[in-house]
Amino acid sequence: MSNEQRITPRAEDFSAWYNDVIMRAELADYSPVRGCMVIRPRGFRIWELMQGALDAKFKETGHENAYFPLFIPESFLAREAEHVEGFAPQTAVVTRGGGKELEERLVVRPTSETIIYAMLAKWVQSYRDLPVLLNQWANIVRWEMRTRLFLRTTEFLWQEGHTAHATQEEAEQETLLILGLYRQFMEEWMALPVITGVKTESEKFAGAVRTYACEGLMQDNKALQAGTSHFLGQNFAKAFNAQYQTASGGLEYVWSTSWGVSTRLVGGLVMTHGDDVGLVCPPKLAPEQVVIVPIWKSGDEKDAVLRVARQVTAELQAAELRTTLDGRDSVKPGAKYYEWESRGVPVRLEIGPRDAEKQQAVLARRTGGKAPVPLAGITDVTSRALIEIQAGLLEAARVYREQNSVRGVTKDQLIELMDGPGGFAYGGFCGDVACEEAIKQRTKATIRALPDPEFQSDPAPTTCVWCGDKSVTEAVWARAY
Amino acid sequence: MSNEQRITPRAEDFSAWYNDVIMRAELADYSPVRGCMVIRPRGFRIWELMQGALDAKFKETGHENAYFPLFIPESFLAREAEHVEGFAPQTAVVTRGGGKELEERLVVRPTSETIIYAMLAKWVQSYRDLPVLLNQWANIVRWEMRTRLFLRTTEFLWQEGHTAHATQEEAEQETLLILGLYRQFMEEWMALPVITGVKTESEKFAGAVRTYACEGLMQDNKALQAGTSHFLGQNFAKAFNAQYQTASGGLEYVWSTSWGVSTRLVGGLVMTHGDDVGLVCPPKLAPEQVVIVPIWKSGDEKDAVLRVARQVTAELQAAELRTTLDGRDSVKPGAKYYEWESRGVPVRLEIGPRDAEKQQAVLARRTGGKAPVPLAGITDVTSRALIEIQAGLLEAARVYREQNSVRGVTKDQLIELMDGPGGFAYGGFCGDVACEEAIKQRTKATIRALPDPEFQSDPAPTTCVWCGDKSVTEAVWARAY
Repeated sequence: MSNEQRITPRAEDFSAWYNDVIMRAELADYSPVRGCMVIRPRGFRIWELMQGALDAKFKETGHENAYFPLFIPESFLAREAEHVEGFAPQTAVVTRGGGKELEERLVVRPTSETIIYAMLAKWVQSYRDLPVLLNQWANIVRWEMRTRLFLRTTEFLWQEGHTAHATQEEAEQETLLILGLYRQFMEEWMALPVITGVKTESEKFAGAVRTYACEGLMQDNKALQAGTSHFLGQNFAKAFNAQYQTASGGLEYVWSTSWGVSTRLVGGLVMTHGDDVGLVCPPKLAPEQVVIVPIWKSGDEKDAVLRVARQVTAELQAAELRTTLDGRDSVKPGAKYYEWESRGVPVRLEIGPRDAEKQQAVLARRTGGKAPVPLAGITDVTSRALIEIQAGLLEAARVYREQNSVRGVTKDQLIELMDGPGGFAYGGFCGDVACEEAIKQRTKATIRALPDPEFQSDPAPTTCVWCGDKSVTEAVWARAY
Repeated sequence: MSNEQRITPRAEDFSAWYNDVIMRAELADYSPVRGCMVIRPRGFRIWELMQGALDAKFKETGHENAYFPLFIPESFLAREAEHVEGFAPQTAVVTRGGGKELEERLVVRPTSETIIYAMLAKWVQSYRDLPVLLNQWANIVRWEMRTRLFLRTTEFLWQEGHTAHATQEEAEQETLLILGLYRQFMEEWMALPVITGVKTESEKFAGAVRTYACEGLMQDNKALQAGTSHFLGQNFAKAFNAQYQTASGGLEYVWSTSWGVSTRLVGGLVMTHGDDVGLVCPPKLAPEQVVIVPIWKSGDEKDAVLRVARQVTAELQAAELRTTLDGRDSVKPGAKYYEWESRGVPVRLEIGPRDAEKQQAVLARRTGGKAPVPLAGITDVTSRALIEIQAGLLEAARVYREQNSVRGVTKDQLIELMDGPGGFAYGGFCGDVACEEAIKQRTKATIRALPDPEFQSDPAPTTCVWCGDKSVTEAVWARAY
């Protein structure tokens, strides 16, 4: 896509806008391989910054990285009944290797519980070997019919945590610890406010006892499941005979969890903050946090302006602000502004001849606003601007979400909302899967979560939005990615 | 493998020793998937530290990370004739996806040139788009008949750099830049001295014009190809029609390079430095650089000793030395020593009641030597010890290599050497593939490299070691992994 092509406005076609933004910012591209995307350097840098932040959090909480095989024998997948039912239809299968038909076909991992529990059963003998707190950064393959860049691709990148514990209580604590850690990352780094809660039986992970999720609301009022944390009980331990000797000499199955976030988060970042000009990147995850654009007409001006621009670049880089100097001769300042804006760079510093003379720069924020700032102390001013932009994006997204959340919906309101603007709809739920299914059929909305206490309505709903029977829990409905 | 099982001595069976060391140090394990290994946290940590160092070097030299699909359409592989011949027999092939037979079978990437050039052809239009300097960290699958942990597995992890340039000269410079960067990493981080040079036609990468390699000598006197850097000429550019418009308006194919190192380096580290007690880890790549073992008998002693041990741990950690306090009650100090030695931890600090009283610790080096050191200034003393150990390992490995290198070998000496102790054999080579093949048949030795000037003999050999004809180049022979 060339710079000349326009970005489709969000109001015209959100889905086209999304693709345009990604192509213009060069985050990713379509590949010649069905359903697979290429993550280009600018998109991969965002993922790397996400990885850095998450990996530090995992390590701080005692987790270690490891690596398990890409291939899983087909028979392994089948050992946990719900698991195989959920994943088998989506698999890519290797049937040939080294020029021969394989005796046992190999599935390209759609998730790694089975292969990991086959190993844990060997490694864990005694309560002294517990807990095992593992994580792996890996590629995953799930055959998808309809794909979308970052959000749904046949191959994607993720981290998958897998932990084994001596007690149910400890495993449940771990599940919630990770849920909280995900939420914190999404809010503090992605400026993506999420609600947390439990999934219903029909929405939970295939093989889990209970699935918790972080759900964000995108600008088209559809929900994005941004991360999940599963309490697996002893399901996989039993399927793979992962037992340990207790302190008192007995034999028990381990209790376990798994949890993951993926490159879909990059898509979530785009859909939360982007505007009709293009990407808006939260400063903490921006490949470039600051771009410096020198402006000149004559050669004399160029020398003077570039000298100042280089000084400022060096100063900001020394303070570890990710700073780029765009000194290209062949591109006019206005075109540079537009290019860097479409790439989502949070702060632009313009330095013209008069600025150089007055020892100042013009600081323009991607989120709006432009003012001259003195070069003395420019690092502090720029750092502060980045912090404000980060906080402002989170606050704006939170306000947006609340404006597009309706509490205590009735059946009619739910239908009206989902036929119309969309958003989060909070209401009572009788717990009957028939109601859940009926709502999905009529509105295409699913229960995103049974919200955690912090997100529950006060007063609590008393009747099911659909059947009018007694409500056993509050639920949040939305159409979702 | 339990702690009680002995490690096979190197002299008895080097290959068994190698496996024992890896299993004992818990670097990796065999998986139930044919030819695939599991990299356990301790082994993965070494790889992560390697990744960190290499990735920083790649970024400093202007490379960006990206991610390309795992799957490659079978027809892509076939576009470059030598390439498909080299890789097709080794591939794993996906023939089913989403429950159906695929129309075009997908190869699990054995290397990514083809898929990357398919994209480059789209992205690169003009000389202004060059150079493209890409790297990806990824998993690779090559069907292997005989596998060995880290050294040769069906799936392995690696980085693959791929760059495209406007001129041949620039691409050749890039190839050498990376070769130098690899060598520097291997020497400074792995304490693995390598010789560098060009591969012969029969040993080069399938599809390259010229392959450069770093070759190390292991303790069993076999060579390990530790990294390769390929000048690809315009081979892949032509196969995928990757052309660009030159500054003068003409159309030319890009010139390109590719280069990689893999998790095999972890195996190289083991075989370079390990001893009969187990792993010896160069401090810069050690998951734990320092282990602190408190020693006590009575409860009073325990309190006093642990208090000091915790202080020292905190102090070393604050100085960013990777430090572990082994305060386990259930294991005796001697058993702890042995366990941490087998895991290769470079420095152990023992703190007993009398040490605590005298405000000292006993510093034991994994490479030998043990002495009391005062607690005041222990961070400096420990840091210095780590630097000395790192330097000592490199020097020892260099001395070992030189002692096991023979220059100016004759035919008889070459045979005797390769039938006997092995090592690097330097000699003249007529350049004829028939001699190369005959030597391989008789001695199982291959030409590891035509050495770069720094490693060439003086005087240069004048005749071919095998046929006695005029030598056109010096060559280094060895049996190799």
